Amino acid sequence: MDWPKRGHTLSNFKWRTDCAETGVNVDSMAELRLNNILSFQECYTDSGSHCYGCGSLNAEGLQIKSYWDGDETICTFEPAPYHTAFPGIVYGGLIASVIDCHGTGSAAAAKMRADGQALEKGAAPKFVTAALHVDYLKPTPLGPLHLRGVIVEIKGRKVTVDVTLQADGVTTAKGRVIAVEIPGEKLA
Amino acid sequence: MDWPKRGHTLSNFKWRTDCAETGVNVDSMAELRLNNILSFQECYTDSGSHCYGCGSLNAEGLQIKSYWDGDETICTFEPAPYHTAFPGIVYGGLIASVIDCHGTGSAAAAKMRADGQALEKGAAPKFVTAALHVDYLKPTPLGPLHLRGVIVEIKGRKVTVDVTLQADGVTTAKGRVIAVEIPGEKLA
Repeated sequence: MDWPKRGHTLSNFKWRTDCAETGVNVDSMAELRLNNILSFQECYTDSGSHCYGCGSLNAEGLQIKSYWDGDETICTFEPAPYHTAFPGIVYGGLIASVIDCHGTGSAAAAKMRADGQALEKGAAPKFVTAALHVDYLKPTPLGPLHLRGVIVEIKGRKVTVDVTLQADGVTTAKGRVIAVEIPGEKLA
Repeated sequence: MDWPKRGHTLSNFKWRTDCAETGVNVDSMAELRLNNILSFQECYTDSGSHCYGCGSLNAEGLQIKSYWDGDETICTFEPAPYHTAFPGIVYGGLIASVIDCHGTGSAAAAKMRADGQALEKGAAPKFVTAALHVDYLKPTPLGPLHLRGVIVEIKGRKVTVDVTLQADGVTTAKGRVIAVEIPGEKLA
């Protein structure tokens, strides 16, 4: 089929302009990179960087990157044209995947911050997902997906993160990730 | 990295032998195909067949296929070597994706069965996911994933499906899909 054209690509997407109405008020991803701000996922050990959703060493994967925005966490991901449920609409599995990986990344970052640990390569603790819940509120149009995470609770090894997903200025999905730390293990 | 070797591939996987202890007692997928038994997803309309998870016309996608086994529904899917969370372990987003697509497919099939509609190309109603919940019980080893769906409830346009996922004879994840029919629309 002819895949539907998207309105913009990451290369010409202006975070401030395009997201002014969505509540996302941080600088552009490019600006973050230029200032050498590490994403949470770049703080994983090499052997913990093979996740299809977020591992920076998984060449086939989605390689999502998450950052702090104050006390909340953010991530922008642009689906491929074939990540469809129906033409022009993002499929639910991708939405679940990015919510999951942004959630576990946010959990690791929250734990690091609580422990006074700076964002450094290899410093992130290993978190796995115990439970994932996603409510699909509206169809999600193809185009950049903006995720925002709120750290709900850090309780022992368990971190709960709520994630909202916006596309084209509209919240189309909400999720909750319950992430659990595998103690003493960083897959170093 | 060198991706871990898997124990078996779909081409040499023997359903009866390998799944005897898991409760999956249907014939092999090859046998289903030889007998021209349509999967649920092959009953979608062409324009409803572009889902990355289950659309038979999405060349880039996973193309999962689901079938009846008595009153329950089954699906076998083999992840790619790069569908990892950590080396040798399937990432959670893929598990969520196949549970989601097997769930919506099962919902469509359940509705067809309730309506006395045979499994025929183009006959499946259009279902979307309203909510997805996944509990990750144990790490899921790379290799064939066996999903089993139970139709919990058909209530108006809403169908609830519980899905268990087994790998290497062990139940590693359980999910619930709440699917909603878009009435009068088959994307024909």
